[in-house]
Amino acid sequence: MRIVVDAFGSDTCPGPDVEGAVMAARTWGDEIILVGPEAQTREELAKHDTQGLEISVVHAPEVLTMADHSEDVRRKVNSSIRVGMRLVKDGEADAFVSAGNTIACLASAIFDLRRIRGVRRPALCTVYPLTLNPTVFLDMGATADPTPQILLQSAMMGKVYAERVMGIANPRVGLLANGEEEEKGTMVLREAFALFKTADFNFVGNVEPKEAVKGEADVVVADGFTGNIHIKTAEAMASFVKRMVQHDLLDSVWSKIGLVLLVPGLIVGLPGLLLLTPGLRRLAKRLDYAEVGGGLLLGVNGVVIVGHGRSNAKAVKNAVLRAREAVAAQVIPTIKAGLAAGK
Amino acid sequence: MRIVVDAFGSDTCPGPDVEGAVMAARTWGDEIILVGPEAQTREELAKHDTQGLEISVVHAPEVLTMADHSEDVRRKVNSSIRVGMRLVKDGEADAFVSAGNTIACLASAIFDLRRIRGVRRPALCTVYPLTLNPTVFLDMGATADPTPQILLQSAMMGKVYAERVMGIANPRVGLLANGEEEEKGTMVLREAFALFKTADFNFVGNVEPKEAVKGEADVVVADGFTGNIHIKTAEAMASFVKRMVQHDLLDSVWSKIGLVLLVPGLIVGLPGLLLLTPGLRRLAKRLDYAEVGGGLLLGVNGVVIVGHGRSNAKAVKNAVLRAREAVAAQVIPTIKAGLAAGK
Repeated sequence: MRIVVDAFGSDTCPGPDVEGAVMAARTWGDEIILVGPEAQTREELAKHDTQGLEISVVHAPEVLTMADHSEDVRRKVNSSIRVGMRLVKDGEADAFVSAGNTIACLASAIFDLRRIRGVRRPALCTVYPLTLNPTVFLDMGATADPTPQILLQSAMMGKVYAERVMGIANPRVGLLANGEEEEKGTMVLREAFALFKTADFNFVGNVEPKEAVKGEADVVVADGFTGNIHIKTAEAMASFVKRMVQHDLLDSVWSKIGLVLLVPGLIVGLPGLLLLTPGLRRLAKRLDYAEVGGGLLLGVNGVVIVGHGRSNAKAVKNAVLRAREAVAAQVIPTIKAGLAAGK
Repeated sequence: MRIVVDAFGSDTCPGPDVEGAVMAARTWGDEIILVGPEAQTREELAKHDTQGLEISVVHAPEVLTMADHSEDVRRKVNSSIRVGMRLVKDGEADAFVSAGNTIACLASAIFDLRRIRGVRRPALCTVYPLTLNPTVFLDMGATADPTPQILLQSAMMGKVYAERVMGIANPRVGLLANGEEEEKGTMVLREAFALFKTADFNFVGNVEPKEAVKGEADVVVADGFTGNIHIKTAEAMASFVKRMVQHDLLDSVWSKIGLVLLVPGLIVGLPGLLLLTPGLRRLAKRLDYAEVGGGLLLGVNGVVIVGHGRSNAKAVKNAVLRAREAVAAQVIPTIKAGLAAGK
């Protein structure tokens, strides 16, 4: 597989982006194409041992930042994001990965890869890492102000993804809302509810965050703004809990054992602590954004994974994993066929 | 203090509502007035030992459910929520507490208590239980589709609350958003950003959920829909983490110690486990919605606390605590004076 990685995506690029790409090449043996200003990209790459790895650099003199709008994206045809998209479009690569500006990735994908026939707006899609049964969640941030029709289309793409890529029969589709009742939510959400009721999928109504996190729907649909706040709140809580648990562990060890019981306490207490850590470590891992890596942009003619601006190297590496999975699962032809069949 | 508690608010009323009210009366010695259909309310009350407590019942033959709209609220003048509001309006009580329909409480408060002069829409306000420095958060769900002007007014009420009730000098006001940049968010949010920039408070720009949870603003403003999803996502994550931690504790004890080391393991491991629990218990407590109790409806002429439909008795008891605090802090005259001064 050949995967293009934007060397100038993350907030602290190119460090995490290049390191993550090298980690991915080493772990899975894929061919990685880094895009970005060539000299700086090569300089960053030289910090790593890349012997035996298939990593090349394609020059992209321009960079799109978090402050850039779609007009800047249109203008900067030689930015790393647009060059990366064109490599996918021209069949030079199987997927594109960026931890850059979501809106810039969305606009570039629309300009260079084009939308799948019939799709008005692509949606950024993820699979919840927490639920026991995997749940498809979209939109994570591509369209802040969708129309009810755009939400319907997101639902249809999510349904095809759940059914054909994840193998969930007759997936339950829910709308993320502040209450179960039909009249809850914004005006757009209430109109979407009416559209969903007559749509050709298994609509289970509004789902509140608690039910969504419990996996009571297989596909959860939200507008891009609320979806982004939902996911980022979950992440924020996760890192809060991680800090608390770490703090409490230290606190327990040092104040309770260290000061009160000292040596006998260490002998008695530490084995218990060590026995607990696998569970807490598993918890921390499940709550770690870097394990997710990024979201899949559904609705364009190519595999595009968009990560957080805050991505570290591990997140970039796992964004490459998400790209590999999407290519292997033939997501694009599957979504195309599914949407065409749904008409 | 005299506090009215809606006996028919919560999803499983009147059980948790009456039990919570009894717990509150016992704990703080306040006079509690229960409102609801009299026979059923008295029957529920008879299940508890109320000796020495000042608890009375005021008959309200109608009940407003989660499915009721503002028109139903207008019509059901003898519903428990409306009767409760009128008791506050007529000076028969100092505050009203309900775990019922938020929109019904909002509409009743507007009908019976009236809005504070100059307030277009009240906002449901809470203080984050997680941050080190307390953060005022609003709107938790009163107005799903606010205009930018309504958001501005929420910010002003939040600022007055932070400054005059919580004693935070020159509170930092932020807008909950999906990115720090001014151009992030929905169209309404971007317009609000422009209004906030020229407003008479310390606007620190957009704050993402992570920064909000870290306490990087003293007042965080959101529309009622996104605000509700934000808070409910945090709660959902909290209960998820609690379940995981409990599961992991059991898992560690039984699979790791119980099966592998058995008796020596129990002797060695359990003290460590017990030493850890105070921290985890503190964590669980901080993450428990029932400790919060409910939000304060800011912008009407009376103290109104609205809890979750899912409230248990502890949540109802703590909603009464929130009401006591608001009355003691003279929130209503303070907000009135603050808004009048800000003109």
